[in-house]
Amino acid sequence: MITHTNILLAIHGGAGTLFKGARSPEREAGAQAGLEAALEAGWQIYQAGGGCLDMAEAAVRVLEDCEYFNAGRGSVFTQAGTQEMDAAIMNGADLNAGAVAGIQGIKNPISLARKVLTHSPHVLLIGAGAEAFAAEHHLPTAPPDYFFTEHRWLQLQTLRESNTTALDHAIGVSPLKPNTYPPNPPPSFGTVGAVARDADKNLAAATSTGGMTNKRLGRVGDSPLIGAGTYADNRSCAVSGTGHGEYFMRSVLAHEVAVQMRLGGKSLAEAAQAALAELERLGGEGGLIALDAQGNCVLPFNTGRMYRGYLCLDGTRFTQIYT
Amino acid sequence: MITHTNILLAIHGGAGTLFKGARSPEREAGAQAGLEAALEAGWQIYQAGGGCLDMAEAAVRVLEDCEYFNAGRGSVFTQAGTQEMDAAIMNGADLNAGAVAGIQGIKNPISLARKVLTHSPHVLLIGAGAEAFAAEHHLPTAPPDYFFTEHRWLQLQTLRESNTTALDHAIGVSPLKPNTYPPNPPPSFGTVGAVARDADKNLAAATSTGGMTNKRLGRVGDSPLIGAGTYADNRSCAVSGTGHGEYFMRSVLAHEVAVQMRLGGKSLAEAAQAALAELERLGGEGGLIALDAQGNCVLPFNTGRMYRGYLCLDGTRFTQIYT
Repeated sequence: MITHTNILLAIHGGAGTLFKGARSPEREAGAQAGLEAALEAGWQIYQAGGGCLDMAEAAVRVLEDCEYFNAGRGSVFTQAGTQEMDAAIMNGADLNAGAVAGIQGIKNPISLARKVLTHSPHVLLIGAGAEAFAAEHHLPTAPPDYFFTEHRWLQLQTLRESNTTALDHAIGVSPLKPNTYPPNPPPSFGTVGAVARDADKNLAAATSTGGMTNKRLGRVGDSPLIGAGTYADNRSCAVSGTGHGEYFMRSVLAHEVAVQMRLGGKSLAEAAQAALAELERLGGEGGLIALDAQGNCVLPFNTGRMYRGYLCLDGTRFTQIYT
Repeated sequence: MITHTNILLAIHGGAGTLFKGARSPEREAGAQAGLEAALEAGWQIYQAGGGCLDMAEAAVRVLEDCEYFNAGRGSVFTQAGTQEMDAAIMNGADLNAGAVAGIQGIKNPISLARKVLTHSPHVLLIGAGAEAFAAEHHLPTAPPDYFFTEHRWLQLQTLRESNTTALDHAIGVSPLKPNTYPPNPPPSFGTVGAVARDADKNLAAATSTGGMTNKRLGRVGDSPLIGAGTYADNRSCAVSGTGHGEYFMRSVLAHEVAVQMRLGGKSLAEAAQAALAELERLGGEGGLIALDAQGNCVLPFNTGRMYRGYLCLDGTRFTQIYT
């Protein structure tokens, strides 16, 4: 596993099994541009002296606004034809956190999670209660046609038509089990996320998702759960995960990476490797991005590919959408 | 911290700040009887050769059915006057888990969590989606007057009337910050939970709660979150927490106890001590029960008291409702 150094910000746009050419060039180019714009948003904030929470939130907002990722605009559809979104953000300096799950109509779920962190005594708000909190704090909403993309809708129809008896089975709806999937359209890419480090060497993690295509109503994955898909602690690292959420929840994956460092005495790369091994032991697939306070960064995954990128201390960026 | 040995089952009925005499003798006796009945339910299953998941579920069901605990029947009321319940159960043998959050009208939330574990590819279902899943699987429901208790309703009214400007502030609604609470009625006791070990030395953990009195709609605490309020792993221990949930979520407390053993090389008691120290470092209050595969058990708390009990290998039981 390659450890990158002097990193300020790393991002992911989901892990999956697609191979080069399985997506249209237009969608690949759109996703690549989205990753680059997210890194640029983080860089602007860093240069203006902003903190790691601002950097992580800004990067995730860009990815939420980009229709080629499964978060915010472009989220996948549930079994019921709705779009239910989850997000979480965590501050590595004081372990404060905010998260939302099962929300509809909020333009930027990550900013609602940030508002829960800053303006609520709670960590996790769900459903209508979270939407009411958003209204109290004047978070921008958007109508269904903002979130709608034909690509995602066709994914749902295909799954509904071709696989109706397996609609509520993880194998059938997992974006990570292509053999059980109808061959076309390809599986969606899951979650987006960011880990950031600011000039004070504080760490933050942020994750946002629309979940799994054709998921049953009310299913919540790992993204909004502190320790599962999102975790940050200045003593160890910031982590954002992407993949088959149930396995991340059962292995408490993001916290596992951090404690492999803090309690197990491992380096960042060794810790990520050990946590992924634990995920694999359970049969889980996915990837993660992790960043420590010294600016070391790893972006491992056990799937065919992961949309990812990082921003270096000198402003240079790197993005990758294939293996 | 005392380590009890040869333990099959440990339970808690919540941690809090009440001192002897602050609750009516009738309610104290009812809670004590509930703890004893929960241990008896676990013992019956153990004697019949049942597994640890059955033992933990059965014990929690008894506590849910007992109106003197804040779970199932007797759950506290939200700001909106509704009762929203959460529960989780985890199997230490394979790290499989099931959980529900923000549900209404399900008689035994822990049995719905168990059904999510056994009959769903998911780990966490919330709200109406979880209730629809319950209906598909014919889980018993109950009308609002089953869950209603005058005691809990009066708690809500008092909070509403005396503390309206602090209704959405954790300090104001925490059951663990008595100085900011109206003096009467006393704060509620939170969550119930169980950790169990069967004849095969497998471990399970289960937790169920009505949450915080006067909580805002949609607030979810640590109880249904794997790694926060509930966790089990045969390699280390089974844990169920109770207390100020937001702090348990931020410190990923139940998983922290387990990894202090698995990665930190600590004994069960040392691991629980270290995890509670981490909770206290953040300012959190509460308690936990933890049981390892050798039958060692600890039941520590940093609050004034914790309702608790345990069942020994030879069938003897112990319950305690004060310090």
